[in-house]
Amino acid sequence: MIYLDNAATTFPKPERVYNALEAANRKLSFNAGRGSYKAARDASAVIDDTKNQLLSLLHATGYADVVFTPSVTHALNQVLNGLDLTRDSVIYVSPYEHNAVARTVHQLSVNSGASVEMLPLTDDLQIDLEKAKYQFSINTPSVVILNALSNVTGYILPVTELFLMAKECGATTVLDAAQATGLIDLDMPTLNADILCFAGHKTLMGPFGIGGFLIKHGITLKKVLTGGTGSASLTLDMPEEAPGRYEASSTNVVAIAGLNASLKGLDIDDHRETVRELTEYLLEALNNIPSVNLMGAFDTDKTLGIVSFVVEGYESDEIGTILDDEYDIAVRTGYHCAPYIHDYLGDKPYHGTIRIGIGQFNTKEDIDALISAIESL
Amino acid sequence: MIYLDNAATTFPKPERVYNALEAANRKLSFNAGRGSYKAARDASAVIDDTKNQLLSLLHATGYADVVFTPSVTHALNQVLNGLDLTRDSVIYVSPYEHNAVARTVHQLSVNSGASVEMLPLTDDLQIDLEKAKYQFSINTPSVVILNALSNVTGYILPVTELFLMAKECGATTVLDAAQATGLIDLDMPTLNADILCFAGHKTLMGPFGIGGFLIKHGITLKKVLTGGTGSASLTLDMPEEAPGRYEASSTNVVAIAGLNASLKGLDIDDHRETVRELTEYLLEALNNIPSVNLMGAFDTDKTLGIVSFVVEGYESDEIGTILDDEYDIAVRTGYHCAPYIHDYLGDKPYHGTIRIGIGQFNTKEDIDALISAIESL
Repeated sequence: MIYLDNAATTFPKPERVYNALEAANRKLSFNAGRGSYKAARDASAVIDDTKNQLLSLLHATGYADVVFTPSVTHALNQVLNGLDLTRDSVIYVSPYEHNAVARTVHQLSVNSGASVEMLPLTDDLQIDLEKAKYQFSINTPSVVILNALSNVTGYILPVTELFLMAKECGATTVLDAAQATGLIDLDMPTLNADILCFAGHKTLMGPFGIGGFLIKHGITLKKVLTGGTGSASLTLDMPEEAPGRYEASSTNVVAIAGLNASLKGLDIDDHRETVRELTEYLLEALNNIPSVNLMGAFDTDKTLGIVSFVVEGYESDEIGTILDDEYDIAVRTGYHCAPYIHDYLGDKPYHGTIRIGIGQFNTKEDIDALISAIESL
Repeated sequence: MIYLDNAATTFPKPERVYNALEAANRKLSFNAGRGSYKAARDASAVIDDTKNQLLSLLHATGYADVVFTPSVTHALNQVLNGLDLTRDSVIYVSPYEHNAVARTVHQLSVNSGASVEMLPLTDDLQIDLEKAKYQFSINTPSVVILNALSNVTGYILPVTELFLMAKECGATTVLDAAQATGLIDLDMPTLNADILCFAGHKTLMGPFGIGGFLIKHGITLKKVLTGGTGSASLTLDMPEEAPGRYEASSTNVVAIAGLNASLKGLDIDDHRETVRELTEYLLEALNNIPSVNLMGAFDTDKTLGIVSFVVEGYESDEIGTILDDEYDIAVRTGYHCAPYIHDYLGDKPYHGTIRIGIGQFNTKEDIDALISAIESL
């Protein structure tokens, strides 16, 4: 199989991740933070070390706490449902948000009466910073929630500029870095990110079952998930302090050990350069096929790892089926759990896009095989 | 290490579980339900098969849907926060509930104004069915939430009787079977359970990262977790139907494959008999040590797998430290994330209990080593 669905989940994982998972399953799968015996303390030590590595990766040591959740969706649910919103609150999102944000802010809006405002796009589907600034001036943001990198088009959003503008308005800033952590160098303080959410199993190349968020010191969210924490067991309230405040339930130390191994060998510059080269190579090749329409891929500097396109004369899932059946090439087709952006892309007549998700372990030969298949249609 | 903390998480897992996890990490860790390629369909097939096995185990084929969540805590949060409660609602719980229930109903009560009522105990710490019946008659239950088996004392609660009484009052019935699924034969329709929550990594002997609930056909909960479902991506509401209604985020197919392997080799009669014999053996031995006070262990027929005790002259964590340091025996000490029951046990002067959690792979020699250590104090 030629795997080009790395935006859904990266595959394969680095060999060190498989080895760490196998070792952790057999030797470390204890209930950390509860038992007072050596094996449970070993589990806690791996969790602490992984948090420290994430703080280091995101330049947030001394700036933020790390909270582990089972997935980035769970992280975003805790974060967004933990915001203190009223009917006067204004939540800004970009048209590139995933349903983990879009459905959650929709529900929040229904429940709290807060309004959801969409950031404006230019004609070439970039965020229009001029217009955004004007929007902020007439309708002050309470919260700005942004994708770091679109899971549909691979667009790298201008987070630095937008969060700076958001901070000038006193807004809380939330970065959904599901598709970017470990691929793009994200400096949380420089980005003015109050909260940064990450997925373990995507660009961080860890396993399923672990995600989370970094939360700047001094910011407190409402408690969302309730349950055992191994602390203050007699108290019916969750603990007051992060991270315990947000970390009910047994910690998945096995998945964390896998993520730990991935982080230890992660070379973010090499990762980005590998993916960047292949993205450029793919974009150029697709551009040369007359029946292909690229979806929102502007220039290579602002597109990384993910490319969407349609082919004239085909619904996108037909292409997916042909690639699977005849070429053993795995891609994803459809709307990719991103509800807003398709109003801009013009892909609805094709029932969504064909999405290529490039990973660290893809090669030019993988891209050649895809291109050859598309050319043969 | 002699591992006697199986109530926190069972360890080791059956060899077939480790093998399945290793194989799934390397060959099956795809995003099920999203991609339309063979590998993603293989992942979906394992998920469906595991759901079918759970339905079979709990006698619920044709009666309930299975919803996967990352843990039983997440399951209980979805279930309890999904109930339609008002200030007139009356939630009954037992004094044996874990904080995944206790803290969650406390929060629900604060938010909705619903009242939380405690089921009464007899002098020997069993549920007083006579008094419970009377309580139900004067203060009709809307919801009855019960532990199947106490994570502190191993007490098997009279679920059949209580849920029958609850149903006569028209209440919704929720069973927290975290410590019982795969150990006790639970027949969901016969038990009159509307919802049954399970943990993958405890008595089901699967890995961390997977839990869930079975929900009787026709019962609908409010949506709690929101995010991508791989379906109806353009819609800002979660899908209406179970299980998609409750299953946002990428499914942890690796953990599910581990649970699948465990279920395939599970002999529930053998599991229960092994654990029952060791429990009886432990209770008898502890009973013969004059300085030991058993906590709420009535008779063997109603205690399974978990035994709590204190030792006169010691705080419980002192015993835990001695067992760890000097004998390499892993137990858990303290309050075990169960807030109510300690008002009845009389263990607070000891700062909680010493809890022994017996698993499928323990032996009489393990128990002998523990007893010998306690006798040597």
